[in-house]
Amino acid sequence: MITIVCKNIKYLPKEKVLRDPIHNYIYIQHQVILDLINTREFQRLRRIKQLGTSNLTFHGAEHSRFTHSVGVYEITRRICDIFVRNYPSHNPTDGLWNDDERLVALCAALLHDIGHGAYSHTFEHIFNTNHEEMTVKIITSEQTEVNAVLRQVSDDFPAQVASVITKTYPNKQVVQIISSQIDADRMDYLLRDSYYTGTNYGSFDLTRILRVMRPAKEGIVFDISGMHAVEDYIVSRFQMYQQVYFHPVSRSMEVILNHLLQRAKDLSRTHKLKSALGTYYLKPFFEGQADLEAYLRLDDGVLNTCFEAWRDSDDEILADLASRFLDRHPFKSVKFTATTANLLDPLRQMVAQAGFDPNYYTAENDSFDLPYDSYSSQTDKGQIKLIQKDGSLSELSAVSPLVLAITGKFLGDKRFFFPKEMLGTDAEVDLLVNPAFRTHLKNDHLI
Amino acid sequence: MITIVCKNIKYLPKEKVLRDPIHNYIYIQHQVILDLINTREFQRLRRIKQLGTSNLTFHGAEHSRFTHSVGVYEITRRICDIFVRNYPSHNPTDGLWNDDERLVALCAALLHDIGHGAYSHTFEHIFNTNHEEMTVKIITSEQTEVNAVLRQVSDDFPAQVASVITKTYPNKQVVQIISSQIDADRMDYLLRDSYYTGTNYGSFDLTRILRVMRPAKEGIVFDISGMHAVEDYIVSRFQMYQQVYFHPVSRSMEVILNHLLQRAKDLSRTHKLKSALGTYYLKPFFEGQADLEAYLRLDDGVLNTCFEAWRDSDDEILADLASRFLDRHPFKSVKFTATTANLLDPLRQMVAQAGFDPNYYTAENDSFDLPYDSYSSQTDKGQIKLIQKDGSLSELSAVSPLVLAITGKFLGDKRFFFPKEMLGTDAEVDLLVNPAFRTHLKNDHLI
Amino acid sequence: MITIVCKNIKYLPKEKVLRDPIHNYIYIQHQVILDLINTREFQRLRRIKQLGTSNLTFHGAEHSRFTHSVGVYEITRRICDIFVRNYPSHNPTDGLWNDDERLVALCAALLHDIGHGAYSHTFEHIFNTNHEEMTVKIITSEQTEVNAVLRQVSDDFPAQVASVITKTYPNKQVVQIISSQIDADRMDYLLRDSYYTGTNYGSFDLTRILRVMRPAKEGIVFDISGMHAVEDYIVSRFQMYQQVYFHPVSRSMEVILNHLLQRAKDLSRTHKLKSALGTYYLKPFFEGQADLEAYLRLDDGVLNTCFEAWRDSDDEILADLASRFLDRHPFKSVKFTATTANLLDPLRQMVAQAGFDPNYYTAENDSFDLPYDSYSSQTDKGQIKLIQKDGSLSELSAVSPLVLAITGKFLGDKRFFFPKEMLGTDAEVDLLVNPAFRTHLKNDHLI
Amino acid sequence: MITIVCKNIKYLPKEKVLRDPIHNYIYIQHQVILDLINTREFQRLRRIKQLGTSNLTFHGAEHSRFTHSVGVYEITRRICDIFVRNYPSHNPTDGLWNDDERLVALCAALLHDIGHGAYSHTFEHIFNTNHEEMTVKIITSEQTEVNAVLRQVSDDFPAQVASVITKTYPNKQVVQIISSQIDADRMDYLLRDSYYTGTNYGSFDLTRILRVMRPAKEGIVFDISGMHAVEDYIVSRFQMYQQVYFHPVSRSMEVILNHLLQRAKDLSRTHKLKSALGTYYLKPFFEGQADLEAYLRLDDGVLNTCFEAWRDSDDEILADLASRFLDRHPFKSVKFTATTANLLDPLRQMVAQAGFDPNYYTAENDSFDLPYDSYSSQTDKGQIKLIQKDGSLSELSAVSPLVLAITGKFLGDKRFFFPKEMLGTDAEVDLLVNPAFRTHLKNDHLI
Repeated sequence: MITIVCKNIKYLPKEKVLRDPIHNYIYIQHQVILDLINTREFQRLRRIKQLGTSNLTFHGAEHSRFTHSVGVYEITRRICDIFVRNYPSHNPTDGLWNDDERLVALCAALLHDIGHGAYSHTFEHIFNTNHEEMTVKIITSEQTEVNAVLRQVSDDFPAQVASVITKTYPNKQVVQIISSQIDADRMDYLLRDSYYTGTNYGSFDLTRILRVMRPAKEGIVFDISGMHAVEDYIVSRFQMYQQVYFHPVSRSMEVILNHLLQRAKDLSRTHKLKSALGTYYLKPFFEGQADLEAYLRLDDGVLNTCFEAWRDSDDEILADLASRFLDRHPFKSVKFTATTANLLDPLRQMVAQAGFDPNYYTAENDSFDLPYDSYSSQTDKGQIKLIQKDGSLSELSAVSPLVLAITGKFLGDKRFFFPKEMLGTDAEVDLLVNPAFRTHLKNDHLI
Repeated sequence: MITIVCKNIKYLPKEKVLRDPIHNYIYIQHQVILDLINTREFQRLRRIKQLGTSNLTFHGAEHSRFTHSVGVYEITRRICDIFVRNYPSHNPTDGLWNDDERLVALCAALLHDIGHGAYSHTFEHIFNTNHEEMTVKIITSEQTEVNAVLRQVSDDFPAQVASVITKTYPNKQVVQIISSQIDADRMDYLLRDSYYTGTNYGSFDLTRILRVMRPAKEGIVFDISGMHAVEDYIVSRFQMYQQVYFHPVSRSMEVILNHLLQRAKDLSRTHKLKSALGTYYLKPFFEGQADLEAYLRLDDGVLNTCFEAWRDSDDEILADLASRFLDRHPFKSVKFTATTANLLDPLRQMVAQAGFDPNYYTAENDSFDLPYDSYSSQTDKGQIKLIQKDGSLSELSAVSPLVLAITGKFLGDKRFFFPKEMLGTDAEVDLLVNPAFRTHLKNDHLI
Repeated sequence: MITIVCKNIKYLPKEKVLRDPIHNYIYIQHQVILDLINTREFQRLRRIKQLGTSNLTFHGAEHSRFTHSVGVYEITRRICDIFVRNYPSHNPTDGLWNDDERLVALCAALLHDIGHGAYSHTFEHIFNTNHEEMTVKIITSEQTEVNAVLRQVSDDFPAQVASVITKTYPNKQVVQIISSQIDADRMDYLLRDSYYTGTNYGSFDLTRILRVMRPAKEGIVFDISGMHAVEDYIVSRFQMYQQVYFHPVSRSMEVILNHLLQRAKDLSRTHKLKSALGTYYLKPFFEGQADLEAYLRLDDGVLNTCFEAWRDSDDEILADLASRFLDRHPFKSVKFTATTANLLDPLRQMVAQAGFDPNYYTAENDSFDLPYDSYSSQTDKGQIKLIQKDGSLSELSAVSPLVLAITGKFLGDKRFFFPKEMLGTDAEVDLLVNPAFRTHLKNDHLI
Repeated sequence: MITIVCKNIKYLPKEKVLRDPIHNYIYIQHQVILDLINTREFQRLRRIKQLGTSNLTFHGAEHSRFTHSVGVYEITRRICDIFVRNYPSHNPTDGLWNDDERLVALCAALLHDIGHGAYSHTFEHIFNTNHEEMTVKIITSEQTEVNAVLRQVSDDFPAQVASVITKTYPNKQVVQIISSQIDADRMDYLLRDSYYTGTNYGSFDLTRILRVMRPAKEGIVFDISGMHAVEDYIVSRFQMYQQVYFHPVSRSMEVILNHLLQRAKDLSRTHKLKSALGTYYLKPFFEGQADLEAYLRLDDGVLNTCFEAWRDSDDEILADLASRFLDRHPFKSVKFTATTANLLDPLRQMVAQAGFDPNYYTAENDSFDLPYDSYSSQTDKGQIKLIQKDGSLSELSAVSPLVLAITGKFLGDKRFFFPKEMLGTDAEVDLLVNPAFRTHLKNDHLI
């Protein structure tokens, strides 16, 4: 058990609130929470969109990781309040809630995404960075403002907060509040993404779920009386993935972004990327020598500013992909299956014949920026456990036919992306285009 | 009467929709509307926040001018639908709705803010640009994609659309749908800003207002049966100004932004602004030689990237103000009146004694980025007219005591802004600070 | 094909609106719709609750069948508007929408529940009445105000409206708008019951479903692009049944109501039911001689007034059950299965030993006032058909794994109901109660 | 100070919740609260509509006094929670919150409307009953279940609860939570009536108001930082009165109800009211000898059942008014002023000439079932006090120009009600009607 006695916990003289469209108000009671929000590293999250390219499909979804982060903090705060009121621990082995864990839980909740960078998943894919490692680094590196604030609590507090995020913190309840099948993170993003996209698929009864959540020796469990609310949450998550997170147009813009960054990296290797302007902040990444400071310089606006500069590049592919991304000209796409995958090579050849380099102008894609997060009943993926009146536990899919039905189901469709020009609607391009291309497309599938 | 017979109006084979949190769906039926949305100039609005610095107070308000623009389009579309169904014109002088005006109204609605730049009002103040002139230029200049799309309708169509925005278009109804006391613009932003800030002050009964709106010879009037809905709209607007648009913290961040840009401009005059990176896109503005292309390069992200570069400037004031802006460290402020204005000079001197240049570290401010838009009963400000059962017209404040009460009321408070350090909470700064400073502040007023 | 040429369709000089919490406004354009709403038979629906006893579990759900009926009308009206705009018929065999069908569709929608009586399903069970037959009778009987209004359209109009409700009307589209797997009726009640109970399980995207609904030769089909919205509707319905309509406490109150009416009927046979007051309006039903007029006299308030009178009955069982119903003292219940059903007889004996007549104080119940309405992929139950881009049709569960998972699933649980007193919390009753009773209950199941 | 030491406060083993559309959940922690809800007198509130005849204008507003009562309880519970967390009293004179007051506050909140009867205000007007006296009687009379439950706490507890309602309870804070300008009662009904009518005029920011509410020596005050939220509440109330509570059609139905009950009473005096059925429960009131038991028998359904019986009365006026009420055929109305009041006599004569007894078929009405509740800055009406940073108090209208504008304003309009038949739209009646009648009506005013 980590010793927490020497923590220096300062409360604000008067509780502060932030107005929030999802939780109405975010309540701040600790000085350290307010100070963390005021750090440079945390404010930077205001300049990074929560949903990457999704706002190019759902225009309302322009919210930032800042907004989501304070929301995860607020849900965690409410969980602590409910736990300490209803399930206060009286001894270290009773499996109930020890409110001394509150501050570490709140800080981990607030900071769980602090390492995210601009267009995270694509960026990481191209430049081999990792937002989870960055999160730990920002928390534990002595050069950050976040670290300085955390150290005011105690010397080992940064390490404790980081260990919650890496799931090595000894108290399972704290870990699972921040990261498990029903955690503060997922609950906030479903509600928030639903609100900002203007879809209602992601809505579920947060109040009821918080009410049936309980600390236990095993971590966090849910009272059987809330089974339907939990079920509704799982279905909502399933629907948000199908309808928002995996939307083909967002994935298409992600493909363009990926190819754009890849092209820049490829050009930088051969010293062909001239524009000093467009590369100043990215140089360390091209050279594989980026440090934390370099990483913290980047945000969506900085990357977009590079792309703006690349519009004027001598390299036609770079300039074209930059414009396609900034001006939102998505690739078209079509579903394919194991049976029709053999058509991809001929199609790529037709794309090449039309003058588009297939390496930069086509893609196969069966995943997305946000890896799918489906419910599984297997132990290692984090089961949801329901507690019966007599204290016995049941795994969710064992009692819910609805959840059983969607448990572990594969959801993503495989898609082939290609330039819209291949469809030949534009007379000029038509001359270049092999008319055979269109004949392979029917009802959004390859045939 | 402008001739509209030669317009080339193409409908989409199938109506398209955009999902929208405010209007549920945005319906697009004309090819020209879809094409305008797909232009570079319009997509650029995705990278400019609707509310400038307000999201630094209300963190949810991160929505862009893109979002608002499609909303104004949608309200206009609905108005046209209702007008053509209920009040179709049968002859040019009957004061009813001629649906040939639909396309020019829709285009003007969609493009009314196309000329907005990054942090518009502050930027304009420092660099003498004007977003309304820019709007006209983008619509009428032959170099823009927007202009090319509009010209496909007819050669004089761009000029027509521009004339709606400059209010010289002959049909008053069209002009007033886009710009009047109760127009599509204001109705969308009240609802949208209310939704994204998470306050509910701006909500009013849009459906009912659209239902009681009527075309008339005088322009747009409202059926007396909807008086209470109109009243509620006026009160909502009043409350949004008081509580959101004029929030002291947003104004404080605006002050910092203003001083930051001013400092950069001042330094550029004396060639002291070294960073090529941070000035590339701003150079034409420093030199007073910006053309449309230079203007269109700018967005919030580009400016923030400049600020990011300025953090490293040798000029301490520039570097400090850039950090204050990016990391959200607002100035403090206090209300003053005609009676207490004499205290400002002594206070500024104390600020100077503490080592802060008052030109860059203090401000008096009685207005805001968004000029206040109060209802006035005077003719030239655009009265709201209610139509009685017998066809006679009454001005709103003549029949609504509630509106009369707030008509023409001055709302803005005068505030004096100064560095938080003057309050001396930080021990180190305390030594510099004149303790007399604090004694002049009580209950948010100067005394 | 029914001739509709001689219909006399009068429009209101000015559209009327009713304010509605679900649809915002209900728009009335035809004189006949307004006149139908103003009939005695339709106004009577204000005094009959939509959800019977559900408000005794979800206190907010006090809405009437009146409210639901105007909602079904409004959804139907919107469907007609969308159909005539997007899919107008040009010849009788094109499978598109003939707007001459609008009025019969609107009237059928408005009147589809006009035959419902007080606490319909229980009442029907005891007195062998049938609300669907009553609906047809009210529409076609010349003694009603409803019939008089309908006849103003044409002599055979009442019969046409009735035939939509009995599903014999020749135009399948009209029939399926009013009654099919996704019809105006179900769509309104899911949204409305969700709103009034304060749960959000029943919410789905009505606008989107209306947008993808299409007339076809087969009746009503849905565009494949709306598959997820349709899926969400099916899941919402599934959840509302599990969580609201089948709630054990509502079913328990339904059991008490059933036994109360049965007791009154049993007593009336042996002339033991003295209270003239409590039986005046029920007498014709006890005697099996109720006519339409007698039926129309009844509403929730009239029945409750009888129960109020029965509180004072000499018959202890009648008086006790009346009080339990009016004062909301539900029976307790426990789930049983085929395996544990053998325990029911012994339990009933214990109830008898405790002094409660098991005929009136216990019940087995595996259904509910609202018969469950699950989605089935079988043809005769009304499939949901999705139309692909190329015009081919797919049955919903064939393309949606989520719907397949819940298709045809049995949902109701079997429950045994018994007096709360059997649990012996009250010392006095304890003496009477066999302590063995409690030992058979665990985790809400019989063991 | 009342001694509260001997109170017997039992908590439920596990908190119970009721689902509520306004407050999401109602939380019940005390056995006495659960027991009060389960009493016959409280359950009876389910059968009495909160808004009397308003659902005849806004059909969604069918909610009962039961629903409102649990809502007032819940708001009070939340106030107590906030007060004890933020402002706990340490000594009897510090003006802070003593949580020993919680139970009396909760019971008074729950029971504040327990004495309301069917169609309260009209009923009281005709039969000289008084719902506030009834409330006190139900609480303090030893024959009620409510009283029995309260006595379990302590012998003087019923008297204490009653004294909160009569405002004689010594702790001003408790009294003002239940009844003052911003109390739990008004806050619940504005939100609830707004939700159920489907208007949004009554919505305001409850969370924020609860957050700025503070106990003080003077009773309840509000932090100056919440001034705008308080202002918004006052404006919402003003708008709900104008648009919902004072709606002319609801008032018209109230007039018919008033005349119907008056006619029955008049007939009962002369023994002309034959129907035993229709008078059984009303008899004690006709005879001026109603006791508490007689009062508790009545609810909306019982009265409507009387009206149903009166439909068949030999007295034509009684039968006609009963049908008009049950079948919702409102009188028409027109505004009049001091200037046009002289026209009323001639109009009444025309009504008489047309065969309608003006005593039962016309009315002047300048008030309503719900007496108007406007904000006044006068001390005796209960000022709203705002507390400044330095602890000084300001009266609301002194700092809010918006509230000042509507403070003490007279709102009700005077209307003259008459049978719709006077407008002569129906050919048959036309013969009877003086055509002069219509000439006096213009733009909803008498001229």
